[in-house]
Amino acid sequence: MLDIRELFRHAEKYADQTVEIGGWVRTIRDTKAFGFIECNDGTFFKNVQIVFAADTITNYKEVAKLGVGTAIACKGRLVLTPEARQPFEIKAEEISEVGSCPSDYPLQKKRHSLEFLRTISHLRPRTNTYSAVFRVRSAVAYAIHKYFNERGFVYVHTPLITASDCEGAGEMFQVTTLDMDNPPRTPEGAIDYSKDFFGKEANLTVSGQLEAECYALAFKKVYTFGPTFRAENSNTARHASEFWMIEPEIAFADINDDMDLAEDMVKYIIQYVLETLPEEMEFFNSFIDKGLLARLDNIVNSDFARITYTEAVDILKKSGQKFEYPVEWGIDLQSEHERYITEKVFGKPVFVTAYPKEIKAFYMRMNDDGKTVAAMDLLAPGVGEIIGGSQREERHDELVARIRELGMDPKDYWWYLDLRKFGGVSHAGYGLGFERMIMYLTGMSNIRDVLPFPRVPKWAEF
Amino acid sequence: MLDIRELFRHAEKYADQTVEIGGWVRTIRDTKAFGFIECNDGTFFKNVQIVFAADTITNYKEVAKLGVGTAIACKGRLVLTPEARQPFEIKAEEISEVGSCPSDYPLQKKRHSLEFLRTISHLRPRTNTYSAVFRVRSAVAYAIHKYFNERGFVYVHTPLITASDCEGAGEMFQVTTLDMDNPPRTPEGAIDYSKDFFGKEANLTVSGQLEAECYALAFKKVYTFGPTFRAENSNTARHASEFWMIEPEIAFADINDDMDLAEDMVKYIIQYVLETLPEEMEFFNSFIDKGLLARLDNIVNSDFARITYTEAVDILKKSGQKFEYPVEWGIDLQSEHERYITEKVFGKPVFVTAYPKEIKAFYMRMNDDGKTVAAMDLLAPGVGEIIGGSQREERHDELVARIRELGMDPKDYWWYLDLRKFGGVSHAGYGLGFERMIMYLTGMSNIRDVLPFPRVPKWAEF
Repeated sequence: MLDIRELFRHAEKYADQTVEIGGWVRTIRDTKAFGFIECNDGTFFKNVQIVFAADTITNYKEVAKLGVGTAIACKGRLVLTPEARQPFEIKAEEISEVGSCPSDYPLQKKRHSLEFLRTISHLRPRTNTYSAVFRVRSAVAYAIHKYFNERGFVYVHTPLITASDCEGAGEMFQVTTLDMDNPPRTPEGAIDYSKDFFGKEANLTVSGQLEAECYALAFKKVYTFGPTFRAENSNTARHASEFWMIEPEIAFADINDDMDLAEDMVKYIIQYVLETLPEEMEFFNSFIDKGLLARLDNIVNSDFARITYTEAVDILKKSGQKFEYPVEWGIDLQSEHERYITEKVFGKPVFVTAYPKEIKAFYMRMNDDGKTVAAMDLLAPGVGEIIGGSQREERHDELVARIRELGMDPKDYWWYLDLRKFGGVSHAGYGLGFERMIMYLTGMSNIRDVLPFPRVPKWAEF
Repeated sequence: MLDIRELFRHAEKYADQTVEIGGWVRTIRDTKAFGFIECNDGTFFKNVQIVFAADTITNYKEVAKLGVGTAIACKGRLVLTPEARQPFEIKAEEISEVGSCPSDYPLQKKRHSLEFLRTISHLRPRTNTYSAVFRVRSAVAYAIHKYFNERGFVYVHTPLITASDCEGAGEMFQVTTLDMDNPPRTPEGAIDYSKDFFGKEANLTVSGQLEAECYALAFKKVYTFGPTFRAENSNTARHASEFWMIEPEIAFADINDDMDLAEDMVKYIIQYVLETLPEEMEFFNSFIDKGLLARLDNIVNSDFARITYTEAVDILKKSGQKFEYPVEWGIDLQSEHERYITEKVFGKPVFVTAYPKEIKAFYMRMNDDGKTVAAMDLLAPGVGEIIGGSQREERHDELVARIRELGMDPKDYWWYLDLRKFGGVSHAGYGLGFERMIMYLTGMSNIRDVLPFPRVPKWAEF
């Protein structure tokens, strides 16, 4: 059976030929003499129109009664229809029911709320919106692999289960095979984790960065692309407990190389999706987010601005704007601040660099001022922060001092410090939240609608 | 700084030009007048030879004393050396130390055991063997994405955390945020999982297949590629607790389509790696597994055999071979049986189909004989099973009956059964263990050596 995508992409090649397709009935209508089926096989966003006539097919009455959602096989002649809305239609010679679909099928023609569709995550990819979302998701994943592969990056699978004490950031899920009801205990009465599967307490990772650094100092250019977890009890439209993240890491590189890479990658992804999935992107622009294509075009065609945190604070203070959170040097920029800068001041993406060390992670490289670190956040119109990165502290003694300053124990970081001890070089990287990127590219406003089977507090169905 | 890969791939382009590279010292030797550094930046398997002379560089003495593992930057003229073993060398004009490396660096020139290198997983990708392994791993991952993308498959991220009762296969890790020391309890004294993060007991997935089926029945052709977990206490060279798996799923397809896809994919991956990483593959063939390239060539150039389980049992019984596990119809084929068939009988990969239903999973399609199911295993010389798949039972009532027969509750499978109720079509898929494939392609015999940071019982370092 031919993919419907193939027919749409090369209709001329199949003109006036008999083709065989399989797919699902999206809509069906008929008169006594002939009828129309909009059929979709999932390989293409648009439906094929099948025309069936009582004097051509032998089972006209049965076909006319097929329900929405029925799986059919169809043999027929492909006829180009240059005057019609669709480029071609199929004049059926045979139609057979492959899989029936009763009338309690939840995806009848009427419009459903996204909230309702989340409760049937196993069926929702059959709808227009989700079929577009998840095809974009797949294409963006591929674009990312292609981008890094073409530039000689090595793809590293950093571990998901971690017993390392290094991460610290964010609340973690515990992973165990102990009997929760009656766990083994030490003589002192504590849980005896030496009896747990890994011989110690283990969690799900919140980032593969530290492990990716090990590989960057072997392969020069690496990236991770894998699942990441946060056990935060945040029931917002932008947080999920399980999501995917991309973390490139480059050696012999500084914060400017890092920003160059991030800017180039973001533009590449956007261009790839616009070129590869024009029908889906047109759909999002028409039905989900009217300004989408203009916003994405603007990003592709602009040079991202680069300012320091200190400059950002100055801009905000001089703006005359009234913000909910007052602006002072040292504060963590809030979404309202970020969006003001990127949307109102620059009207394009903005890198903000050199953040106060107090609001950034321990591994970021200290700037010469002793107050700020070589961090960078990429802010984008319509969404705020989409990338966060930094040059890493590659100087062994400076890193040890910073670890101590924060009350952590350098012993827990022995292997991470080894990277500074044995042929350490300046290196940098960033993290891109994959779902945030998909939301940005589609205009979908809830992260639950860009994850196939989202996991959020109190919800892990399917 | 130029990537050393770029120099090797396009040496002529840079002949007699001054180039700038950065990398790590692999070996260094010197006389009083000149010296040689083998330098590797991780972008290419082979080292660049840098020649430095006392009358050319100003810091000759310092350079001559650099330790193995030191990070350096080097500016010099690229000179083609057609008579030498290496295609070119760099005549240094400037060499500077970027990151020092003291003499307690564990990767000194001497050979280390793989066992020892596992204890320094953060440094081992800097060795020849692991740099080859992990570049192959990255290339194979890309080949898989490229293969499926070019054929219109949608990449689906199935969830890692699951609260579904559907999976059943294998021991699972529990995921929790409850206080292990003092968990909330119901009035009856049981652990109160309604207070756990997801409101119920949750685990790490052992397969994304059931969720992938949902997407195959929307997109026709999908695949997953993600981490999978097994909490089995198996300390073998072929088992890891966290590994990656590829699971394609195709609709409007049967078991034969499934085998066609598997065969085509395996050949594609092998060809891709042989073409893309000839230096690494040559290394494995020379130093790890002498018969490797011949074995892989044989696979690419053979038509895989296809026999039924019943035929396989007949062959084994008539073989006159003495097996440790005696052969009778109904037994699960052991590794010795699988290898006899693929290595001794066919000398090429073999699909075995139509296994007894008792030794296969509930979701596999029942054959008309009522005794066997439409399963397929791909056996390959030198390793045994590398792929397992099946056509899925798409008939609603048959599936319900099978679920009941196995003492499971159809209610737990409501969404999986929905796929059979609403436009169900015949579909099939398989699972490829990614690490098993990498072991097969490299000749590495321990799974701990093809995972960047392996997780196995009692071991989750880094």
